[in-house]
Parts: sequence; structure tokens; C-alpha cells
Amino acid sequence: MLCCHPAIPRSLHCSLSKFLISLVKCGRTDLLILLGLLMALSAGWWTCIAICLQAQKWMYGGLDSNVFLQYLAWVTYPVVLITFSAGFTQILAPQAVGSGIPEMKTILRGVVLKEYLTFKTFVAKVIGLTCALGSGMPLGKEGPFVHIASLCAALLSKFMSLFGGIYENESRNIEMLAAACAVGVGCCFAAPIGGVLFSIEVTSTFFAVRNYWRGFFAATFSAFIFRVLAVWNRDEETITALFKTRFRLDFPFDLQELPAFAVIGIASGFGGALFVYLNRLIVQFIRKQKAINRFLMKKRLLYPALVTLLVSTLTFPPGFGQFMAGKLTQKESLVTLLDNRTWAKQGIAEEFDYIGHSQAWKHPQVNVFVTLVLFIVMKVG
Amino acid sequence: MLCCHPAIPRSLHCSLSKFLISLVKCGRTDLLILLGLLMALSAGWWTCIAICLQAQKWMYGGLDSNVFLQYLAWVTYPVVLITFSAGFTQILAPQAVGSGIPEMKTILRGVVLKEYLTFKTFVAKVIGLTCALGSGMPLGKEGPFVHIASLCAALLSKFMSLFGGIYENESRNIEMLAAACAVGVGCCFAAPIGGVLFSIEVTSTFFAVRNYWRGFFAATFSAFIFRVLAVWNRDEETITALFKTRFRLDFPFDLQELPAFAVIGIASGFGGALFVYLNRLIVQFIRKQKAINRFLMKKRLLYPALVTLLVSTLTFPPGFGQFMAGKLTQKESLVTLLDNRTWAKQGIAEEFDYIGHSQAWKHPQVNVFVTLVLFIVMKVG
Repeated sequence: MLCCHPAIPRSLHCSLSKFLISLVKCGRTDLLILLGLLMALSAGWWTCIAICLQAQKWMYGGLDSNVFLQYLAWVTYPVVLITFSAGFTQILAPQAVGSGIPEMKTILRGVVLKEYLTFKTFVAKVIGLTCALGSGMPLGKEGPFVHIASLCAALLSKFMSLFGGIYENESRNIEMLAAACAVGVGCCFAAPIGGVLFSIEVTSTFFAVRNYWRGFFAATFSAFIFRVLAVWNRDEETITALFKTRFRLDFPFDLQELPAFAVIGIASGFGGALFVYLNRLIVQFIRKQKAINRFLMKKRLLYPALVTLLVSTLTFPPGFGQFMAGKLTQKESLVTLLDNRTWAKQGIAEEFDYIGHSQAWKHPQVNVFVTLVLFIVMKVG
Repeated sequence: MLCCHPAIPRSLHCSLSKFLISLVKCGRTDLLILLGLLMALSAGWWTCIAICLQAQKWMYGGLDSNVFLQYLAWVTYPVVLITFSAGFTQILAPQAVGSGIPEMKTILRGVVLKEYLTFKTFVAKVIGLTCALGSGMPLGKEGPFVHIASLCAALLSKFMSLFGGIYENESRNIEMLAAACAVGVGCCFAAPIGGVLFSIEVTSTFFAVRNYWRGFFAATFSAFIFRVLAVWNRDEETITALFKTRFRLDFPFDLQELPAFAVIGIASGFGGALFVYLNRLIVQFIRKQKAINRFLMKKRLLYPALVTLLVSTLTFPPGFGQFMAGKLTQKESLVTLLDNRTWAKQGIAEEFDYIGHSQAWKHPQVNVFVTLVLFIVMKVG
């Protein structure tokens, strides 16, 4: 029946080429691939941050003859980095301050925020974020990554519009920005599905489903290149998850463990709500204190420096930090926490093999559970 | 600072209880849980379908003395089931015909489709789907499951509205339906994330993000109960995925395999596009042939019966079916395909251990690749 139809081969060929052209034109797959590639190449940038983090440990380790000098090195380093980060951003592009997600939400709804997606902001954000993350403070990088990916997308669109034609469409740029939000998180954790879900949750009230495949495409490409780079770099043997779990395949978890998981989930939910609530209270309190407020507005660098001083004092390994694995960087502590080794038996912490980084969790006098609770309160809270 | 604030404990308590009330009221978590539970209990229904599928094999096995009788049993059984399914649906509720996703899309956009979400349609859909799936034809169940979950949600809403109060809000019912679409797929494959993504992709052009957590909550609950039931039923030792993969944890796949994966993806994409294209051509062709069309409209049961006859003749194990693992049910063939056993070495099929169901793939004269290709063309296409 089908073979007798003379129009099929030509129309099939025609619709195939039409399909490919429209894929590039409407989908702007070229830009999506470029965006994914660019964000994945930020893997090289991770190395910078890792070096910054190592530098602090190296200074701390080298001065082990004098505890006071050790403390000074441990505290000065992040304070200097954070202050530089805050100052640099303030001078070059104040738009780069903060996480960036609220602003991206605003832009995606069609409001034009002046100077928010310029090259100057890009430079300020990248250098500011490098210093801030390199200081080892417990900071989230999802928000800034979403902003950086959006900056990349906007700059790419602007650059391509120099060639005219299909790249000049303004409404297409919003679609690119929506994809960029997914790429930001997808590349940050090498988790494209999580990235897309995050971008759906966070950026819109009504998510345009036509942007869904764009986000997936760019985020998957980005995460893929990110992990392939790790293989080429000889960090990994093959493509694997960034933070691996080691559940057994045949018996991933016991049914009796599930209530515990549920309790963790509920507690985390309420903990998160409490955090938001307390944060709002503190902000409102500070806003009411006109004097403090005016002082902080004038000396913009003082507040971050003070907070950094406090946090780094608390995590100082020979001091309070010994009770909360203060030595570990954020990535190291995540790796040890996702490790499938037993630290306790029937609710009682015993002498188990703490190999490698997990030794930081062990303390001669203090139970591992106390260490974990302190860690959660300090680093997560 | 915070402890001195007298308003905190009361306002915290107040907002907590307000939060819990609003969770039940606005989120209608009670209905979401009920919906998830109901859909998960359809696990018992799977047993019915499995029995239907076993019956065909049992008849086929019992008549192994005479090939003609075997063929008659193999073919008659699905033809009778499919014809009954089509006839029953046609008589009781013609609205239950088809997948249900296009209609759900229409309803979610606010159009009222008469009789589409009634108890009669529910009965027709459930019994019709049981017979259709029990016949062993290569049919998808996502669409009907979305419709059944939506029917459950609508009937639950209607039932609860008898008690008046918060359940009478019409606009809330649409939100319940959106969650139901996620539950349908989430429960069908015990894959809540896939279910939610499917419901986002398929049901809307602009997805209301406020429905996102509802879909997730109900789909996760449903998938969880579905898998817990399997444990209670002693089918499984613990909660696991419905279709397990057995990649090695430390080395999930080789980098050199990735181009092959990409080729499979691209080929599947084009194959899917070709399928849609051919399907449209066939439908257009039949529509033009007024005589055939009128004949089929009058004898509505003839078309499904003929197609079933053709397909079951082709899958008849001693006939053409021996080249495409015709004996296996859809679930069995999926399990053997996701198995991590080698069937070929350096591109050449060799003598490997075909254990259990995977023996159906082995044929003394024909290469395993030919079997696989025929299987894909017939069952998937």
C-alpha cells in the first residue's frame, strides 16, 4: 500500500531536511550545545577552587609548631578571600551580589533588569564566586551557577546576533535563559534531571513545556562533557556519578530502614522551614535597627568579614572544629557521608575503620553522633 | 537576640498549626494519599492480567501433540479477549475507547467532556484494559493508566464532595486531575520521577508549577506502596526497582560504548518519527476509502479482531514467532533484555548460556541479532 504512493520518498526527504533545519533554527541547538560546552568547561575552574581550598590546608599544616599562628592562618585566609570577593563585586558590578535566582525569575517573567546580564557582571560573578567558594565557607553554588549559566546564554545570544538573521529574535532569548537555568544546576552536580526539575520548580509559576527539551538537551550535554572531562583528566576510570552512592544492587536497603529515612525527610523539611523563618526574623530585626543598618550600608565589607571570622573560628580544627570534621572541605565531607561504611552498631558508636578522610569524623573523647549533629547544625544550618 | 523576642513561640506555634491545616485544605493531601493508595492497590489487578497471560501459554503448552490445535488456541484466545474488550467498552461506555491522554489534555485545559470521568467509564476502562493487556498484544498501558488514575481522582473528589465543605471547589479538582496523570505513569512503572516528567510533558503547554509537588507526592506514595506490596506478597526480598538494571557500581559502562548508545538513541528517535509518519499515512489512506471506512464503522469489532489475528499469527511460537521470542510476555522480554548477560562476542553471536527465559531468544539456525531485529520491528513497531 505504501510503496505504490509516489509522493512518499520525496515528501519524506523534504520533511527530514525541513526537520533538521527547524531543529537548528527554532531549537537553536547550536547555541544549546555551545552553552552546555561552555558550562562544562568550567570544570577547569573547579581546579582553581580546589587549589584555593588546598592552600588553606597547606598553610594550616605547615604551621603546626604554633597553634596561634595556625589559627591566624586558618582564619585570615577565608576572611581575606571573602572580603576581596565582596569588595571586587561591589566595585565592578554590584548586580552580581547574591544568589541570582530571584533576579532570573524576574527576568524570565519579562522584566528587563539593567546591567544584569552583561560581561562586566559575568567577570565579577565568576571571580567573586571563585574566591567565595575557595574560602571554604559553607556556601551554596546552585544560585550563582544559575546566574553564570544565564550570563553565558545571554552573552552567547548577543554574540551570535552580530551575525544577524535568526539570532536576533528577542523572545528566543528568554527561552535560552530558561534552558540556562537548567544547565546551571545540571552542570554543578552533573545531574541533568535534577537540574531540569530545579529549573522548573524555581524559575516559573507556569512552566512553558516547550522549554523542557531545551533544558534537558543542554543540561545533559553539559553534564556529559563535565564527566567526560574527568575521564580525560584521568580523575576517573569511566563516566560515573559525581557523588556516588554504594548501595548493594540486589538488596539496596532494608524495609525497616524506611521509617528512619522518612524521619530524616520530615526533620529536614521542618529544619528548612525553621531556617527560612529564623533568617526572615534576623533580617527583619536588622532592618529595624536603623543605626546598625546605616553602619553596615556604609561599611559593606565588614558584615561578610565578621561572619567569615566567626564561622572559620568555629571550624578551626584544634578548637571547636575537632568535634565537627572541620578539616574537611564540602566535597570531602559529602563523599565520606555518602560512603557505605558502618560507623555505629545498634545505635552505639564503636571502634570501626575510619579510612582516609573519614578519620576526620573520629574523636577520641566524643561520640561520632555528636560530631554529626554539630556538623549538621554548623555547616548546613 | 531571638530568645528575647516574646512573640516567637506563639507565632511559631500558630504558623505551624496554620501550616498543617493549610497542607490538608489546599493541598488536599488526604485525597492525594487516597489516590496513591488506590492506584497502588491495582497491583492486585496485575495478578489478574498475569493469570490471563499464563492461561494462553498453558493452553498452548497442553496441546503440543497437534500443531494446528496449538495454533487455533494461540490465536483464538487473544482474538476473543480483544473482541470482548472492544465490544464491552463500546456497549457500556464508548468514552473509554483509546488511550485517554488527548482527552485528559482537553479536560485539563478546562473543557468539560461529558461522561468522560464517570463510574461507568471507569468500569468499562478497567475491564476493557484487563482483557486487552491479558491478550498479550503489544499494547502500551501508560495512556489508559493516566485515564484510570484521573477517573479515580474525579470519583474520589465527587465522593468527598458529598461531605461538603472544602471538597466542593471545582478548580481544585483540576489540580487533582493533574496529579492523577503523574500517578498513572508513576504507579504503572513504579517510577515517580518519570511519572511526573511524563505528566509535565504530555498534559500541558504551560505547566502549573503549583501542581508539581502534588504529582510528586501522590506518585511517590503510589510507587512506594506498589513496591511494598510486592515485598508483603513475598515476590521481592526488599524494595527494588520494577525493572532492574545490573550495571557494575564501580565501572557502570565503558566510554567506548557511548557512541553505540547515542546511535541507539538517534535511531529510536527517527524510528519513532517514522512510526508517527506511517501511522498518519495509513489513517489518512483509510479515511479516504469511504467504502472501507463505512464498513469498519458498522462492524466496529472486526478491525481489532483482524489486527489481533494477524499479530498473534505472526508471533505463533512454532511459526514465525520462533525467530522473535514470541513465547515471552512483554514483562519477561523486558527482564531478559535488561539482563546484563553477554549474547555475543566481538559482534558475533556465540554459544552462551541462555538461562531461564532468555532461552526464548536462542534459535538453532538463526543468529540472535536477527531475532532481536525481528522482535523490535514486530513488538515495538
